Amino acid sequence: MPLNILFAASEDRWQAYEAPLREALSDIGQGDANLALDIPAAEVDYIVYAPSSEVQDFMPYTRTKAVLNLWAGVEGVVGNDTLTQPLARMVDDGLTQGMVDWVVGHTMRHHLNTDLHVMNQDGKWRRYVPPLAPDRPVTILGLGALGRACGEALAGLGFPVTGWSRSQKDVEGLRCLSGDEGLVQALSDAQIVILLLPQTPDTENLLNAARLDLLPEGAVIINPGRGPLIDDDALLSALDSGHIGHATLDVFREEPLPAEHPYWAHPKVTVTPHIASETRPKSASRVIAENIRRGEAGEPFVHLVDRSLGY
Amino acid sequence: MPLNILFAASEDRWQAYEAPLREALSDIGQGDANLALDIPAAEVDYIVYAPSSEVQDFMPYTRTKAVLNLWAGVEGVVGNDTLTQPLARMVDDGLTQGMVDWVVGHTMRHHLNTDLHVMNQDGKWRRYVPPLAPDRPVTILGLGALGRACGEALAGLGFPVTGWSRSQKDVEGLRCLSGDEGLVQALSDAQIVILLLPQTPDTENLLNAARLDLLPEGAVIINPGRGPLIDDDALLSALDSGHIGHATLDVFREEPLPAEHPYWAHPKVTVTPHIASETRPKSASRVIAENIRRGEAGEPFVHLVDRSLGY
Repeated sequence: MPLNILFAASEDRWQAYEAPLREALSDIGQGDANLALDIPAAEVDYIVYAPSSEVQDFMPYTRTKAVLNLWAGVEGVVGNDTLTQPLARMVDDGLTQGMVDWVVGHTMRHHLNTDLHVMNQDGKWRRYVPPLAPDRPVTILGLGALGRACGEALAGLGFPVTGWSRSQKDVEGLRCLSGDEGLVQALSDAQIVILLLPQTPDTENLLNAARLDLLPEGAVIINPGRGPLIDDDALLSALDSGHIGHATLDVFREEPLPAEHPYWAHPKVTVTPHIASETRPKSASRVIAENIRRGEAGEPFVHLVDRSLGY
Repeated sequence: MPLNILFAASEDRWQAYEAPLREALSDIGQGDANLALDIPAAEVDYIVYAPSSEVQDFMPYTRTKAVLNLWAGVEGVVGNDTLTQPLARMVDDGLTQGMVDWVVGHTMRHHLNTDLHVMNQDGKWRRYVPPLAPDRPVTILGLGALGRACGEALAGLGFPVTGWSRSQKDVEGLRCLSGDEGLVQALSDAQIVILLLPQTPDTENLLNAARLDLLPEGAVIINPGRGPLIDDDALLSALDSGHIGHATLDVFREEPLPAEHPYWAHPKVTVTPHIASETRPKSASRVIAENIRRGEAGEPFVHLVDRSLGY
C-alpha cells in the first residue's frame, strides 16, 4: 500500500518542496507515495512538518511513525504535549553550508572592519591594518552540527577558535570548553562571539548583562542562532556604554523585526533578516526521504530530538 | 668581522623593524651585526631594501652580497640597471595570511552581498538569500604564493576555484588554467575575479575592455594585486553599463588614490587604501635574517627575483 505523507507546512513551502520531495521519494523506491496537503489524520504515515503549520494537535495521528521537521529549530514543536511520535530535526548539508557562508562572511567583515571602507567612500585614505586571523580569538557558543562546521571553517582560516557547549565535546582544531566555568573562560578572551546554541529554557537570555561584562572591551556579537539567546536590553546597554563594539543579528524574538525596534536605528547593530541559514529544498528533501526509508526498513531514524533536552 | 647591514627604507619603517630585525639576526648568530641607516656604500654586506628608498644607484655597493626587499612587489627596483647584486622578494607568512584574510573577507562580502544590509538599516526586512559557495565560481588570476594561498582558502570554504597563470601550474583543489586560451576560459564563467598577478609589461592592462566583456553579467572584480593590471577607463565603462556588478580595489596607479578620482564616487566601486597585504615586521625580519644566514653559510638565497621575467 502506498505511504500517506502529509505535508504540514505553508502553501509557498509546498510550491518549493513538492517536486524535490517527489524526486527524493522516488529515489528511495517510494515514488507511488501519496504526498499531499490534506490526508485524514488517522491514515497519515509520516508528517513533513513546519512548526508554523496548522497541525498543532498530534493526537489524531494514531499511525504516524515520525514527524520530520523541515526546520533546524524545533522549539516551536518540542514542547507540544500531544506529540508522542518520534520527532526529527532537519540537518541539511545545504543549510550547514549556508550557515558557514554567513558566519565566515560576517566574522571576516568584523575582523577586517570592511564597514569602515564600505560606508566611507569619501576620498580619505584610511589606513587601518587589522591584526592577522591568528591574533583574533573567536568563540562559538554551541557545538552542534552548525557550530562545529563554522568552528572548523574559521579554524581553517587561521583563527584561534574556542567552542563551548553544555556537555563537553571534542572537535579537532578547536579549544573545546563546557559547563559554567568553561563559559566564563570561553567569553573572557573572545573578540568575536558567535551564538549557535539551540533555544531551550536553559539557553534563554544566556547572553545577559553579567556574561556580556566578561567579554573584553570592544568585542563583537554575531547571532545567527536564536533571538531569545540574548537579553536585548542588556546588549543595547553594553553597546551604548561602548563595552560591546558591534552586534550583527540575524534572529530576533519577533520576526520580521518591527521597524520601530531600537536595533534597526542603532549605529553599532547590523540587522539581517533571518537569512543565515536557509533550508534548501533539494538537499532537505533527501534528508526527509532518508528518514522515511529508514522507517520503512525498520532502521533507526536519524537526527531525532531528545525531548527531555529540548533539541 | 661583524656584518654591515644597511637599512634602506623610510624612517618609520626603521621604527617598526629595528627591534625585530636585531632579534632575528641574533637568532642566526649575527647579534653583533652593524645594522644601521647609514653605512659607507663600499662597506655594505647586505641591503634591507624598500623600493621607495633614496638608494637608487647600486654601483657603489661593490661588496654587497644581496638586496633583500621588504616588499612583495619588486616592480620599483627590478628595472634598475645599476642593480647587479642578487635581489630577493619578501615572501612573508604574515603577508600571506593578511592577504588571505582580506581576499576571503571581500569575496564573502560580495558572495553574501552584506553591503545590502550594512548600508540599509532602515527597518525593511530584505530577504535576499544568496547561492551557496559551491554554486559561486571564483577565478584567481595569478598563482604565486599569494594567489595559491587565497585559492586554497576559498576552495576550502566550498567555492569552485579556477586559478590562472602565465605558465601551467598545479594546485590541489583548484582548476588550473594557463596561456591565452586558458584566460578566456577562466574569465568566461567567473562570478568573482581576484587579481593577484605581478606587475610586468605583460600584465599591464591585462583586464581590458575585451577581457571584461568575457565575464558573465554582474561579475565582481577584486584587485589586491597591482593597480596597472586594470584598464581603469574600461572598468568604469563596464560598471556604468551594468556588465560588471562591482569592483573592490585596494591598489591603484597613483596612491593614495586622489580624492577626485572617479573610483571614489562610483556607487559600484569600493576603494580600500592598499591594506590587503601588509608585511609584518616580526615574520618579515625572520625572512630577511634567513637569507643573510644562507649568504654567510654559502647556501643559495631563497625568493630570488628572475630579472628577465620581472618577478
